[in-house]
Amino acid sequence: MVQIIEKKKLGQALNAEEIRFFANAAAEKSVPDYQLAALLMAIRLNGMTDEETTELTLAMRDTGDVADLSSIPGIKVDKHSTGGVGDTTTLVLAPLVAACGAPVAKMSGRGLGHTGGTLDKLESIPGLRIGLTEEEFLRQVKETGVAVVGQTGHLAPADKTLYALRDVTSTVDSIPLMVSSILSKKLAAGSDAIVLDVKTGSGALMQNLEDSIHLAQIMVNVGTLAGKPTVALISGMDQPLGTHVGNALEVKEAIDILSGRAAGDLKEVSLTLGAHMLVLAGKAGSLEKAEKMLRQALDSGAGLRKLKEMIAAQGGNPAVCDDVSLLPQAAVRRTVLCGREGYVSRMNTMALGSAAQAMGAGRLRKEDPIDYSVGFVLKVRLGDHVTPQTPLCELHARTEEDADRAEQAIRAALSWSGTPCDRGKNFYALVTREGVQKL
Amino acid sequence: MVQIIEKKKLGQALNAEEIRFFANAAAEKSVPDYQLAALLMAIRLNGMTDEETTELTLAMRDTGDVADLSSIPGIKVDKHSTGGVGDTTTLVLAPLVAACGAPVAKMSGRGLGHTGGTLDKLESIPGLRIGLTEEEFLRQVKETGVAVVGQTGHLAPADKTLYALRDVTSTVDSIPLMVSSILSKKLAAGSDAIVLDVKTGSGALMQNLEDSIHLAQIMVNVGTLAGKPTVALISGMDQPLGTHVGNALEVKEAIDILSGRAAGDLKEVSLTLGAHMLVLAGKAGSLEKAEKMLRQALDSGAGLRKLKEMIAAQGGNPAVCDDVSLLPQAAVRRTVLCGREGYVSRMNTMALGSAAQAMGAGRLRKEDPIDYSVGFVLKVRLGDHVTPQTPLCELHARTEEDADRAEQAIRAALSWSGTPCDRGKNFYALVTREGVQKL
Repeated sequence: MVQIIEKKKLGQALNAEEIRFFANAAAEKSVPDYQLAALLMAIRLNGMTDEETTELTLAMRDTGDVADLSSIPGIKVDKHSTGGVGDTTTLVLAPLVAACGAPVAKMSGRGLGHTGGTLDKLESIPGLRIGLTEEEFLRQVKETGVAVVGQTGHLAPADKTLYALRDVTSTVDSIPLMVSSILSKKLAAGSDAIVLDVKTGSGALMQNLEDSIHLAQIMVNVGTLAGKPTVALISGMDQPLGTHVGNALEVKEAIDILSGRAAGDLKEVSLTLGAHMLVLAGKAGSLEKAEKMLRQALDSGAGLRKLKEMIAAQGGNPAVCDDVSLLPQAAVRRTVLCGREGYVSRMNTMALGSAAQAMGAGRLRKEDPIDYSVGFVLKVRLGDHVTPQTPLCELHARTEEDADRAEQAIRAALSWSGTPCDRGKNFYALVTREGVQKL
Repeated sequence: MVQIIEKKKLGQALNAEEIRFFANAAAEKSVPDYQLAALLMAIRLNGMTDEETTELTLAMRDTGDVADLSSIPGIKVDKHSTGGVGDTTTLVLAPLVAACGAPVAKMSGRGLGHTGGTLDKLESIPGLRIGLTEEEFLRQVKETGVAVVGQTGHLAPADKTLYALRDVTSTVDSIPLMVSSILSKKLAAGSDAIVLDVKTGSGALMQNLEDSIHLAQIMVNVGTLAGKPTVALISGMDQPLGTHVGNALEVKEAIDILSGRAAGDLKEVSLTLGAHMLVLAGKAGSLEKAEKMLRQALDSGAGLRKLKEMIAAQGGNPAVCDDVSLLPQAAVRRTVLCGREGYVSRMNTMALGSAAQAMGAGRLRKEDPIDYSVGFVLKVRLGDHVTPQTPLCELHARTEEDADRAEQAIRAALSWSGTPCDRGKNFYALVTREGVQKL
């Protein structure tokens, strides 16, 4: 291990054997944490080549189970987002993509920090189980075409050790470590192709566009080198993607979109990501065609029906799709007005995510419980013109005190301007094996 | 702690408060080793300013006791060597400097790895104690002018933690960490001024001259900033300094030099280092004057008498100074011939140190016992012309098998040339606060 640290310290590339030793040591905890920590910092500061990152990703994948989806007919396309606020694309696109005939066999994660987790959102649906066995999971996808569950096996245990260490050694922001962490789990989840949604902006891990593109390029390279066709979209996270932030509230927004009652950025981003999934799955010859198929599935109600099927198959109450008031409701509901005139010039999206977390919607520690009912609905978007009487947000809180604090935090997270300003963009770039296309 | 790691990861300078937090955390083990390890690697790769290194040195010093030598009259000058093979300067210069009227109150260390430790050498003298109390130590220096002992207090405990971690995280070769490790202990040892002997070459931590000079410059800066006049000599370690390698053998060589029976590089280097000590102690107005005083002390036998006094004061048998056969003797003694004609062109000094270590003269682990009697006497120096019948070395071993292995290792450590070659140099540079003077 010391020789491996030494080599990386001197800026040399590690070979496959050294990288496998490191990944196995992390999984088995067979070398002390302080040696892993020293190597993580050396990797953070001296980097890794794409070949090293690919090898590390594969080695980490191989430290645990690899799901076998081969019994499900067709090309299984997975989608991964680097994490945002009010980002419920999975719940919108999974049923739509499935309704268009592409199987969606998705393992999701829990939320930590200022971003929500798909599993937590799903669990706000009364009765719904995310802990399926591998057999149940495969059967559900074969029968209904879609399942979104927790990990069915012991996926990439090396990542568990390294992720925990990175958090406390200031090595979270290492591109090779981010890529191997994300992709080792994605590859272990067994899909045939991957669509990545790399966030950029005030609510994202990577706050500037160049860094986000760089991260996306390496992920696309590594995914492709690992034998899985991979594309990445760089999407904006300068404001929450949806208007709803909080677990049950985000499920409600997904249902509203699938019911045709709501539109906006979350819908558009979901359709674009879904279109890339359909193309990779071989269900559409072009993005235009794929998007048209998805809009038809939405307009015809096929997407909402697919969501109901999925909820029912996982033991949840599908009636929430017809009556969103069956979702958990917060005790305190308050509408907050803007109280000023002007344009919304900037949102500190991370602070908005943290405000929801503080209300009880997210975890500070892994073992913290979540209150599914709490959160808020933002009534303004970047660039909007408001008057003092314009609603700013609708708070869903446990107590009046929680609502007071959230109101303060949300106000503090917004910046105003007297003149019209930029509305931000949904997508900044498409990164494929062929190159970067600015959007 | 994460914020401190983050700052250094980004290449920023840490402030005094952050550095003190780190040093105290290391001493008290109040933060996990993996965070210390990550910071050590970040320091190794992003460096520290002289101000940071000074602050770290002082902070590490302050984590433990600081010896108070003020009751000893005069200016106390300490000497520190970065560690070499066959390097017994302390045992030669301490009695000579004391014989010239400058008090020598020295705390030394044990050997680890390929270099020997002064304490181990001293303990090869029958009866000698190195574990004096602070009171005994001070009284001995006041009465005899010289004492060489182990640490009397709990000096720089932060270094103990960090040194152990550096060894296993490949961060030994960080200049700020080396400097703070060496100088925190030197400053805690309480002397008024410091002479540093920074080794360069195949047996040294720093194998090239530029790096050695750089290390010396920073140590001189930090020592001076810490209020202790400090000078550094860069000395050659392209071959063992003395001809004797091994604990009792090195004591014998020191006695031989003080008795006038032996000369060579060890004697010359000891006289030069001792001269700098006398000048800093205010006992001589110039280096020339100082060296003359030391040569007189040597020729008159005053140095040998002072060594006897010291040995007696520490409970050892001073008769070893008149009869070196009273020192521990190895069972097997063998003279090895060169067996070839040519010039000695290169020595792998580290390999020679390791050969002695393997014979039992040094430790592989901290808790290993030492055999004081074993080692070897090299009969050739760099640049010497030899014939097949020229003696190469005299082995002092526990067994014939040990002698066989040592013979092989020593032969493998030497390179030969058919044409005359360089003899190497004792000193390459003098580094003071004013600058670098090539020698």
